[in-house]
Amino acid sequence: MGNAGNIQPVQWRNDSLVLLDQRRLPAREEVLVLETVEEVTRAITDLVVRGAPAIGIAAAYGVVLAARSRLAEGDRQWRSLLCGDLELLAAARPTAVNLAWAVARMRACMVDVPESELLARLLDEACAIHAEDVAANQRMGMLGAALIDPGSGVLTHCNAGALATGGYGTALGVIRSAWHAGKLTRVFADETRPWLQGSRLTAWELARSEIPVTVIADSAAATLMREGRIQWVVVGADRVAANGDVINKIGTYSLAVLARAHGVRFMVVAPTSTIDLDTASGEQVPIEVREWTEIWAATGSDKPPQGVDVLNRVFDVTPAELISAIVTEKGVLAPVSGPGIESLQKG
Amino acid sequence: MGNAGNIQPVQWRNDSLVLLDQRRLPAREEVLVLETVEEVTRAITDLVVRGAPAIGIAAAYGVVLAARSRLAEGDRQWRSLLCGDLELLAAARPTAVNLAWAVARMRACMVDVPESELLARLLDEACAIHAEDVAANQRMGMLGAALIDPGSGVLTHCNAGALATGGYGTALGVIRSAWHAGKLTRVFADETRPWLQGSRLTAWELARSEIPVTVIADSAAATLMREGRIQWVVVGADRVAANGDVINKIGTYSLAVLARAHGVRFMVVAPTSTIDLDTASGEQVPIEVREWTEIWAATGSDKPPQGVDVLNRVFDVTPAELISAIVTEKGVLAPVSGPGIESLQKG
Repeated sequence: MGNAGNIQPVQWRNDSLVLLDQRRLPAREEVLVLETVEEVTRAITDLVVRGAPAIGIAAAYGVVLAARSRLAEGDRQWRSLLCGDLELLAAARPTAVNLAWAVARMRACMVDVPESELLARLLDEACAIHAEDVAANQRMGMLGAALIDPGSGVLTHCNAGALATGGYGTALGVIRSAWHAGKLTRVFADETRPWLQGSRLTAWELARSEIPVTVIADSAAATLMREGRIQWVVVGADRVAANGDVINKIGTYSLAVLARAHGVRFMVVAPTSTIDLDTASGEQVPIEVREWTEIWAATGSDKPPQGVDVLNRVFDVTPAELISAIVTEKGVLAPVSGPGIESLQKG
Repeated sequence: MGNAGNIQPVQWRNDSLVLLDQRRLPAREEVLVLETVEEVTRAITDLVVRGAPAIGIAAAYGVVLAARSRLAEGDRQWRSLLCGDLELLAAARPTAVNLAWAVARMRACMVDVPESELLARLLDEACAIHAEDVAANQRMGMLGAALIDPGSGVLTHCNAGALATGGYGTALGVIRSAWHAGKLTRVFADETRPWLQGSRLTAWELARSEIPVTVIADSAAATLMREGRIQWVVVGADRVAANGDVINKIGTYSLAVLARAHGVRFMVVAPTSTIDLDTASGEQVPIEVREWTEIWAATGSDKPPQGVDVLNRVFDVTPAELISAIVTEKGVLAPVSGPGIESLQKG
């Protein structure tokens, strides 16, 4: 199945959370060592760590740090103070459901645990979330690669790789597996504006794993599809709604429409922790709008002239009917349907 | 019809060609003063001036500079030396047809002109090309705006504005006219990777003209279309083939496919000098591939890791059947057809 070039975006080391600072890649490989939940919350908001599964794992370790600090303070109200910490942590970014999911799972495992055993219990649970994610990615890699015919070109958007997960990748996990099975003619990566997760992170990660990749401007994908160089678009997801709508990085919906128009198939690879049965459809998901500076900075001028507005909506909604297959660790859903989503997640 | 905020990308001043250096916008407004055709050729290659009509106008003045230098040298072979200069000039960029068209027109007006009158004759012709372009833009602005219903949102890609032309704009000429007629709810501008003509040039130009604009990432256009916020995509063209295929900035084809999928109309605004009857279809046009650095520079690292390729194809082909209307100074073609193109250009 190939390895992931030993890329570790999130690690627990010497009682601290160690994050690879993804804002600095590919120019520099630096890690941040975090000791408090406030630092973890800020790191998630500031994109030190990004990608829905990796955010969930970082948050799980963040809960360990939060509990450690509150217990060390010795305040009798520590449980309610901790509860407040976890609410702030869960709100660090609004769109990915894995963040809320991981915090809720950590919270659930605190029930009826004696204070003396709490930290060990929480750390076990965080490590379990981490290990389960890697195992889920490897399983998804195998299931997704099986859908791809030999001789295919694939396009991915953003980074749904080792960097976005516990260390193997969702969409890039499938691409890794398909590449090592000798099925791929070429991997194309959208640069993915505004944050360049494709050119900065996916290219770096695939190079590290010795998988050749061609970086293209986001707007060039349609032409490559027209030329028959792309057979599958393979992406991750920040959230999958109960009806199979997928919320992912801005530009995903665009690729899904273009894929349909060109007879290209469209695969979403996401662990079942990304499925949110409480969200009936994509229309109900809060879509994060980030600072205009993330787009404008590239122009080299300090701020837009008066009268110029910059809209930096960073996710979009891809309706279920445009998706050829959703690949989870529990199996493949194709075609995508609401009942299928529900049985996948519960199964 | 509104003015263009007095934006002059190309000027003939004190016997020199003065170009607004578009590489520096919007951070700095600087001009370059050019005295030789070699400087003009390099300025076109290096994107000091860009946009098919503006390139043609700059090249016309470049021919004046070339003739002046060769005549001043006093070599008996000046005509053949000049011929070589003009070949290099015409090849400064491969895709826009206006460049070859302007050089050919300047060349044609040299026939049977006595040496003593040559420079004056060439300068007159260059000024005529310039003035005709502005007049054509204003006429296209009127014709194109008439197609747009009141209450429309429009999206433009790249910069087909005053900066890309003699001083009013093709696509932005239509948007100017429609805005001043009170027809537009909102103008959206794609930032247009990799060279950011949208966020750097179109936003600056519209702000200068007091027309509000919202800059978006290229990949966000589909979502805005889905939300019903865009009724027309309005773009320029670098070349229009005999069958009505349009060659324009990378991403144009993508927008045309997305527009069709969302019931959004798609307008191409281009003077008839952009029509190339010698090119049967878009498939035959040489598509410029530029340096990988233009895409990669944004990542902040010097060069891609080994195994990472960067494809910087800067134009694409939009087939005629995806275009709702082609607007020229001689009239509107809708629907687009080969015979229609031919009669427009000859009419």
